[in-house]
Amino acid sequence: MAAVSKYLTAKNSSIAGGVLLVLYLLKRRRRRQGGSHGKAKGSDLVTDNDKDAKRDRAAVDKAFFVRIGQIVRVMVPRFLCMETGYLLFIAAMLVTRTYCDVWMIQNGTMIESGIISRDMALFKTHFYAYIAAIPGIALVNNFLKLGLNELKLRCRERLTKHLYDQYLTGYTYYKMGNLDNRIANPDQLLTQDVEKFCNSVVDLYSNLSKPLLDIGLYIFKLTSAIGAQGPASMMAYLLVSGLILTRVRRPIGKMTVIEQRYEGEYRYVNSRLITNSEEIAFYNGNNREKQTIYGTFKKLVDHLHNFIFFRFSMGFVDSIIAKYLATVVGYLVVSRPFLNLSDPRHLHSKHSELLEDYYQSGRMLLRMSQALGRIVLAGRDMTRLSGFTARITELMRVLKDLNTGHYERTMVTHQERDSDAEEKLTLVPGSGRVINVDNIIKFDHTPLATPNGDILIRDLCFEVTSGNNVLVCGPNGCGKSSLFRVLGELWPLFGGELTKPERGKLFYVPQRPYMTIGTLRDQVIYPDTFEEQKRKGISDQVLKEYLDNVQLGHILDREGSWDIVQDWMDVLSGGEKQRMAMARLFYHKPQFAILDECTSAVSVDVEDFIYSHCKTVGITLFTVSHRKSLWKHHKYYLHMDGRGSYEFQPITEDTVEFGS
Amino acid sequence: MAAVSKYLTAKNSSIAGGVLLVLYLLKRRRRRQGGSHGKAKGSDLVTDNDKDAKRDRAAVDKAFFVRIGQIVRVMVPRFLCMETGYLLFIAAMLVTRTYCDVWMIQNGTMIESGIISRDMALFKTHFYAYIAAIPGIALVNNFLKLGLNELKLRCRERLTKHLYDQYLTGYTYYKMGNLDNRIANPDQLLTQDVEKFCNSVVDLYSNLSKPLLDIGLYIFKLTSAIGAQGPASMMAYLLVSGLILTRVRRPIGKMTVIEQRYEGEYRYVNSRLITNSEEIAFYNGNNREKQTIYGTFKKLVDHLHNFIFFRFSMGFVDSIIAKYLATVVGYLVVSRPFLNLSDPRHLHSKHSELLEDYYQSGRMLLRMSQALGRIVLAGRDMTRLSGFTARITELMRVLKDLNTGHYERTMVTHQERDSDAEEKLTLVPGSGRVINVDNIIKFDHTPLATPNGDILIRDLCFEVTSGNNVLVCGPNGCGKSSLFRVLGELWPLFGGELTKPERGKLFYVPQRPYMTIGTLRDQVIYPDTFEEQKRKGISDQVLKEYLDNVQLGHILDREGSWDIVQDWMDVLSGGEKQRMAMARLFYHKPQFAILDECTSAVSVDVEDFIYSHCKTVGITLFTVSHRKSLWKHHKYYLHMDGRGSYEFQPITEDTVEFGS
Repeated sequence: MAAVSKYLTAKNSSIAGGVLLVLYLLKRRRRRQGGSHGKAKGSDLVTDNDKDAKRDRAAVDKAFFVRIGQIVRVMVPRFLCMETGYLLFIAAMLVTRTYCDVWMIQNGTMIESGIISRDMALFKTHFYAYIAAIPGIALVNNFLKLGLNELKLRCRERLTKHLYDQYLTGYTYYKMGNLDNRIANPDQLLTQDVEKFCNSVVDLYSNLSKPLLDIGLYIFKLTSAIGAQGPASMMAYLLVSGLILTRVRRPIGKMTVIEQRYEGEYRYVNSRLITNSEEIAFYNGNNREKQTIYGTFKKLVDHLHNFIFFRFSMGFVDSIIAKYLATVVGYLVVSRPFLNLSDPRHLHSKHSELLEDYYQSGRMLLRMSQALGRIVLAGRDMTRLSGFTARITELMRVLKDLNTGHYERTMVTHQERDSDAEEKLTLVPGSGRVINVDNIIKFDHTPLATPNGDILIRDLCFEVTSGNNVLVCGPNGCGKSSLFRVLGELWPLFGGELTKPERGKLFYVPQRPYMTIGTLRDQVIYPDTFEEQKRKGISDQVLKEYLDNVQLGHILDREGSWDIVQDWMDVLSGGEKQRMAMARLFYHKPQFAILDECTSAVSVDVEDFIYSHCKTVGITLFTVSHRKSLWKHHKYYLHMDGRGSYEFQPITEDTVEFGS
Repeated sequence: MAAVSKYLTAKNSSIAGGVLLVLYLLKRRRRRQGGSHGKAKGSDLVTDNDKDAKRDRAAVDKAFFVRIGQIVRVMVPRFLCMETGYLLFIAAMLVTRTYCDVWMIQNGTMIESGIISRDMALFKTHFYAYIAAIPGIALVNNFLKLGLNELKLRCRERLTKHLYDQYLTGYTYYKMGNLDNRIANPDQLLTQDVEKFCNSVVDLYSNLSKPLLDIGLYIFKLTSAIGAQGPASMMAYLLVSGLILTRVRRPIGKMTVIEQRYEGEYRYVNSRLITNSEEIAFYNGNNREKQTIYGTFKKLVDHLHNFIFFRFSMGFVDSIIAKYLATVVGYLVVSRPFLNLSDPRHLHSKHSELLEDYYQSGRMLLRMSQALGRIVLAGRDMTRLSGFTARITELMRVLKDLNTGHYERTMVTHQERDSDAEEKLTLVPGSGRVINVDNIIKFDHTPLATPNGDILIRDLCFEVTSGNNVLVCGPNGCGKSSLFRVLGELWPLFGGELTKPERGKLFYVPQRPYMTIGTLRDQVIYPDTFEEQKRKGISDQVLKEYLDNVQLGHILDREGSWDIVQDWMDVLSGGEKQRMAMARLFYHKPQFAILDECTSAVSVDVEDFIYSHCKTVGITLFTVSHRKSLWKHHKYYLHMDGRGSYEFQPITEDTVEFGS
């Protein structure tokens, strides 16, 4: 009966499997056609363009091995390091575990035969041996897990540090989000994808190293025992099936990349909701946002359902070719010399001799075929890995690009500005020249343009020397912030010359000052560290004075210590944050400072003190403010009208004061 | 030689393992003491308080089973649904796979004996049987994977939807981030932790259901064959070892929770860097931020290293007790009747009878002991799961709390405001009364206070009826935004009465208006959907008029269609966004609207049009603005001085105009 049901199952299921695979492939083709249609309608919510499609091509090919080689060099920097130690340790544990498994089976058989033959002595010997071996075997198994987990974590550490070193060089982090638009979510890449990549690559190592070790051993033993033909035909099967499967599996890498992107989008709409929660709550927008989130989630889930069914069809083909047919080939190779009755080797052998021969070479061949199958199966992990590798490599490439000053951005082309098109072409990012000279800021025929290529002011020329405060005014969007970004070297220069002190000697104070994670002291001396404060010879007493100057002394009194850690962004009120930023300005004493509406929540007496103090210590200010009371502190004004014109004039008694 | 080396390994390694465990436990104790010291110094960067420590208590106890029962009821809502179908399907596939494995081993033995005995017929029969069975077996294996993956995904879908339904009810998403501070990162919980929980719970099901099925089967067969004593003693071992291990494993759940929290912190500092990248870039703060990120990463990695070593020690104990000693118990129970030569059952048995007996009951007992071991091992997954369960349950509890109007917040107690303490106690959130009446807004002895309990205005009284625009002025932090949040019902009322139209009839337009993900149409009608637009009978022609009114008609002309999808937050300039928000206001025609500095980037002629249009269609405005040119559009002004006083007066010709 078992045989009948088995045959039935086998036939039915092979038919069922085949039908499923065909159905799947048809469905995919239809979906692909449907997909391009959908894209034309712009159904993709979040940034999703042809470049993404190009990046999705993650397959196990030459590029993959080159890429993974680059990353592995980061993770295992030297030949002699902890990582190579763990690699060897894992290989050793894998081999030991095989020996343990074989011993366990043999010993178990002896215990059983002791029981069956009622041989107390035999039973006891092997039973005690079993008990004695338990700790060793448990240790080997857990050492293996330890080794794998530690290696994963160490690789993650190395790769994370390597990426951060580049990400946090200069303004690369700023450029990635604001100038370049190739990488949408660096935080997800740096945290999650790095982890997944490391887990994936170490798992692949353990899945590959064991069968490779086995095969090497078997080939060595077998070729000396029965010649090279058996092992060779098996290796041939490995090659052929491996090549076929690699090709069939290709979509898996692509689907993994898409899965990651959809997961990223899903997370993005979530954090977007949190970031804008107040506006959305005011608008009663929860149902609209629910639609968006559900839409993104549905896209992800639909893809995952598809992926699961695809993996099912793939897994069916995979396990047949790599696992079961490999064993079939093994049986065929093993059986040939035995069943060929004219084979000279076994012509006159007795049963016991045959048995010995089989156990020596035959079993080994079978094990080898299984090891080969495992390698072919590992190819699947490799395809999955290729998806992660593609993402990490893309990040590394963009980081390298940005650190060498290149950036890519899809320029927003407004049709109505077609007239500018010709001129825009002449704008080459980074074509201007920055000259570092102390105590002067001079724009010399510099165009003011956004990284998109939108020109705000065609030709900016003005000069400010130390001691001459400038009031910057004009409507929103006239280019004030752009001017400061160019001054701060955040944006590239599109031409002309810009003379200015070097970066650290120019300070920008935004309307909503940034408070770092850390102590109260860190807020004042940011971005300096305590060590740098001491090196500069500024005592805590002086810091306290700065706080008192801006009427923040009570915070220190209240908290009791400079080293108290709080979420300062949350704890300080808007006005307190602005005053803290002023204390920070006093601490750093830059040559120039840009005050961007940053005293809007500060009382007038404190404001007056700030301006007179800056004058005393020699900080020259660029101020953006609506308050007319501030005009008296400035010698020049720079007015931009938002339509490409500007005016740079000394403030005299006749000057009409702008501002509402 | 093998035996000698094995004994050596066994002894050495058992000693080594024991020493490691003791060392680990000592280290942990020391660290715990060190930990409390560190906390006193405030070394934890991100929100981390005693309440977290309480939440970390995630163990496998009664509470865990209650919690998981609640969540499973969400994931498997009915007895007859796809999920139960998959549950049964997985169980069926597990049993089938066991039969397949047994058949494979038997068939393999027959093939081998065919080879060894050079019996071509025997070899062929079983070899062809093997080939015929391949598709069936491959199908079973892959059906199992399919079932597991699909069940995971379906559970994730159900749980996610359930949580979102609560999260996106009313302003729960706003309250969670702004009023309550129990959950720091809902996005991570909703996306990642839900996924991990579902994977974990389904894996646990498959790890438990197979051995449970086996054990049920074996107990049934064995008790009828050899009586209840053997199975009973095994069950006793299961109970004892399970209880011991559950207790020993307890820290794993806690460590999982800590791991999740550290991962969350690490991700938080990453996204914080991206959010504030411009300010940080201006400050040259990359090295300081690198310190913070590395610090957080180091904390995570240190914890993970610790966790790996702890899991190593635990795994050592675990596998010995659950895996190997279970087999030892199995051998002892099996061997007793055989080796006890006076046992009546085997007194006169021949070898062949013994063999048959062993294969019928003995092997079954051994398998049962292994199944029991597997259940005990699954307890480890359960401990890990308890960590995720704790987090999900916490989220569900907070969601329920918020949806019923309760919130918890660590009140910021400023020492210098001690004098207010007595009064603060009398403030009970939600103690005021909101009365919905059309065309009037009336504050009747309402205190204006932040959710922290900080009082901005003790007793606010004023009344505005439709048609009387109000200008709201005062320095930053005086309570303008708080007033609007109370009006928008985002913040709870702390007392008095507030008469106002119902929520949808009051509109808030912020300085940086929110653009939703979606089409150009969505930006105008937000938060309405296209269906609602049609139901309201507002044609696209009218929408176009609204756009033209605020001089945004060119966007429609440029894009060519209402259904174009763009990242509007990025594509529109600041001024365009503000004008879009005005078009949105015209579309919705609320009774009242709050314009919060939202025309700062709009030209004066458009601004004038907005005010006259609002007057025409009957929208009464509360305006916050610095522009003096706006005073003429208003009948009253509300001035708050930021020190607890306010003034509500009609604007006459004598009124001194505030503003800079």
